[in-house]
Amino acid sequence: MTQSLPGFREFYPPECAVKRAIFQKWQQTMLAYGFAEVEAPILEPLELFTDKSGPEIAEQLFHFVDKGGRAVALRPEFTPSVVRMVAARAQGLRKPIKWFNIGEQFRFERPQKGRLRSFYQLNVDCFGLADFSADAELIALLIQLFRVFGLTQADVHIRLSDRNLWFFFLESCGITGQAALDVLALIDKMEREDRAKSLEKFQKCVGDNASVLLTQIEALIAARDLPSLKIALGGALSNPAVAQRLAEWEGLLDTLDAMGVLPFIQIDLGIVRGLAYYTGFVFEAFEVSGRSRALAGGGRYDTLVEKLGGPALPAVGFAIGDVVLTDLLTEKNLLPTCNMTPDFYVVSSGPAERRIALGDVQILRAAGFWVEYALVDTGFSKQLKLADQAGARHALIYGESELAQGLVKLRHLGTRVESDVPHAQLKETLSTLSSSHHA
Amino acid sequence: MTQSLPGFREFYPPECAVKRAIFQKWQQTMLAYGFAEVEAPILEPLELFTDKSGPEIAEQLFHFVDKGGRAVALRPEFTPSVVRMVAARAQGLRKPIKWFNIGEQFRFERPQKGRLRSFYQLNVDCFGLADFSADAELIALLIQLFRVFGLTQADVHIRLSDRNLWFFFLESCGITGQAALDVLALIDKMEREDRAKSLEKFQKCVGDNASVLLTQIEALIAARDLPSLKIALGGALSNPAVAQRLAEWEGLLDTLDAMGVLPFIQIDLGIVRGLAYYTGFVFEAFEVSGRSRALAGGGRYDTLVEKLGGPALPAVGFAIGDVVLTDLLTEKNLLPTCNMTPDFYVVSSGPAERRIALGDVQILRAAGFWVEYALVDTGFSKQLKLADQAGARHALIYGESELAQGLVKLRHLGTRVESDVPHAQLKETLSTLSSSHHA
Repeated sequence: MTQSLPGFREFYPPECAVKRAIFQKWQQTMLAYGFAEVEAPILEPLELFTDKSGPEIAEQLFHFVDKGGRAVALRPEFTPSVVRMVAARAQGLRKPIKWFNIGEQFRFERPQKGRLRSFYQLNVDCFGLADFSADAELIALLIQLFRVFGLTQADVHIRLSDRNLWFFFLESCGITGQAALDVLALIDKMEREDRAKSLEKFQKCVGDNASVLLTQIEALIAARDLPSLKIALGGALSNPAVAQRLAEWEGLLDTLDAMGVLPFIQIDLGIVRGLAYYTGFVFEAFEVSGRSRALAGGGRYDTLVEKLGGPALPAVGFAIGDVVLTDLLTEKNLLPTCNMTPDFYVVSSGPAERRIALGDVQILRAAGFWVEYALVDTGFSKQLKLADQAGARHALIYGESELAQGLVKLRHLGTRVESDVPHAQLKETLSTLSSSHHA
Repeated sequence: MTQSLPGFREFYPPECAVKRAIFQKWQQTMLAYGFAEVEAPILEPLELFTDKSGPEIAEQLFHFVDKGGRAVALRPEFTPSVVRMVAARAQGLRKPIKWFNIGEQFRFERPQKGRLRSFYQLNVDCFGLADFSADAELIALLIQLFRVFGLTQADVHIRLSDRNLWFFFLESCGITGQAALDVLALIDKMEREDRAKSLEKFQKCVGDNASVLLTQIEALIAARDLPSLKIALGGALSNPAVAQRLAEWEGLLDTLDAMGVLPFIQIDLGIVRGLAYYTGFVFEAFEVSGRSRALAGGGRYDTLVEKLGGPALPAVGFAIGDVVLTDLLTEKNLLPTCNMTPDFYVVSSGPAERRIALGDVQILRAAGFWVEYALVDTGFSKQLKLADQAGARHALIYGESELAQGLVKLRHLGTRVESDVPHAQLKETLSTLSSSHHA
């Protein structure tokens, strides 16, 4: 039989229940933080992605020409679609606009640990607010999205950086425009290559000053608090914009402290985010040892909506993927648990009792209970054996003599303790009993 | 800005909340009926679909060759994928295997009312049981999937048919094999074309007997109860297999009666399901007037798993789509409602109070409450105005004198009634107050 494609996943019931539980925790958290869910097509015109990221992005995409002659692509990310949606209605929406999406993304890459060709992402954006309070809100939310699974600051941290500070610093070194973006791209790679290689690249990019510049950059990356950062900024400090930016840093950190999430934050200018459109604070979440890929990443992108043809609308957002998170939760034994056994297994002593039971099964299921019964009628003791095999908590027993007295027998299958339930009040009685039903 | 593709939908928050509410009702119902969720890739090898439906299916698909040189397609239905999954593990799974999926499907068709190029389907299958009790379970489940939205037998009905009876009847007329499948394909189209046209097609298919045959077929289609069906079957009744099949009909209808869903059932042999792989009872759900497209359809397919390379595994399943259902719920004013307003809006009288409030906001959100506050700090009365604009049920007011007494003020924004809540027991007190929070 034809197998599924490499880098794509099948989810059998146990894995699907975990996925569902993760999505539900994401959704509950997003609603508590006041974000509204949106959805956009999984298949989009190819140019939606090349307009944002340049034609070279097509190399990483599943793209083709459809039967209508349109160049289309499976979306590699949600941002272009949500920017289009917000741009179309920005005028009529109360600001800030807080939206999220939980959806599938597709990239044609070599499948490897933590990276598949199809994966799910929670995508979060806040539009319409340039103030750092929106950045704080999103960073606190990202941290809650880890805490909701039982992860703590001993497990994950947020590496917080600032592309504005980098631009101010590079400007003070005489590096501006595309050259500054090129240097940021080099900084993005420094963590994963040796110093000699980095130095060589810097020499190609900025010439003779490379060695001094690299040392200054290393000092900035090593800074873990604002005083160290100020020292490392050196000559850039004389720029009044830098003083103002540092005041925003103080405001952001103070807000995160008030929110109770500062222990998760690590100042780390080594994070610059590869993509050119980020404009301010940027951040990535990692397992604290830093061994695995980023769990999440995001930042401020105040110019993108306008660049893509919308109104001027400041924005900050992040995305968190399911693959690396699920690996981490598995490793930490924190995968959400799911009820995989029925509430009730209905057993009947004969055809007349079975008819009555079948009606009750529908009523109890409509009330939200997970109810099973032997689909093919079989002997009484066989039915009780099936109830045990299914792992049901209780058997509901429909016997001739009990029904004659208007009763149904309830048996706890662990303790074998039995009690009689009035048939006329079955649903109400069972509702007081079970706190685990799904309704 | 690049628009989305024709036949694909964007879901802004109000529509997305409805979609989510529909999916949640589907999921709760499926779990109550003891079905486990599974998921398979949205992109599959093209041959997975052509193996099942023949090469002509490609005309209706989004398909292409990926960068690895594989012919791939966006799935038009879930059945081939779930059949592959069940075939791979059938031996180790307790029967019956009851699985469902809620997912996106794609067909390259002309977009029109009730039919889009991308749509969602709830796909339901029960594997491993040839008995009609499995058919009854699925039909009762399908009906509950309408009732859960408030739809009744005055709104929707299930047209129940049987391809076995058709095959027995056609056999008694000397029509077997591919000729029988061809006649079923003609019957499938009769409802939507005039009689002269149908007769012409029958003549091409079966020759001179067409007129008599068509009259007999019309009598079978017109039958609405078992006695009429028996009369219409005519000479086929002498086949002992037909008597046995009618006993299964009686068993199925009696079971549906015991389940309390018989009022939804309409015997209607006009339903034959277009696809060749159905092998027994088949059914479709319609709005009772029959004006719109089918809401759902399914039936028994006992040979497909083996045909696709798996073990011999009887199966019955159905799918229900979101497009026609959402149209019907809209028309009947039965769209599920969703809470679109915050539980609490937090207001603070100054910077010190705001710091305390920001910490509480995170705690209350972690407890599942939807909590909002003015992201950018602003004046006290402006904050109260924002609370009203957001439609929050309560304001939580952090004032200097109240906090000095260890209190927070709770104001109901509809009635303006205020009460003091001990700051140390804030979460616990609010939990007793609100029954509408999301946790």
